[in-house]
Amino acid sequence: MPRVVVNVMPKPEILDPQGKAVTGALKRLGFQGLSVRQGKRFEVEVEGEVTDEVLAEIGRAAEMLLANTVIESFDVVAD
Amino acid sequence: MPRVVVNVMPKPEILDPQGKAVTGALKRLGFQGLSVRQGKRFEVEVEGEVTDEVLAEIGRAAEMLLANTVIESFDVVAD
Repeated sequence: MPRVVVNVMPKPEILDPQGKAVTGALKRLGFQGLSVRQGKRFEVEVEGEVTDEVLAEIGRAAEMLLANTVIESFDVVAD
Repeated sequence: MPRVVVNVMPKPEILDPQGKAVTGALKRLGFQGLSVRQGKRFEVEVEGEVTDEVLAEIGRAAEMLLANTVIESFDVVAD
């Protein structure tokens, strides 16, 4: 089935406590020089073809439901 | 700075309650024909170049820390 991916990430100017925790844990485990930001990935299965219209609709869905656009940015990608 | 992305998704055979909740909410909001699975996206900033060795190290980190490989699968992608 055709698939669209929505990536949701904390905006660069927003603190990311989850990412900070992961970064610290990786360091303690011996993985050096890695800095992590954590976001969400939504895989959306679509009935029918992935048209520009479908991508725009999923963009609206992301804005309404998948991302908190005050603190997160998102992008919509046909997979 | 060079960046590597780790995508972590629930395995296909595993129930995904978050994705199910999102799918239901989208339907109630009037978005028809969309089925969602929810996972995580980690953006890893790397000091220096993204070599095959670095990708392999991040794969080990993903296996140890970023993904629960009992119920999740992951992939590592140079961005």
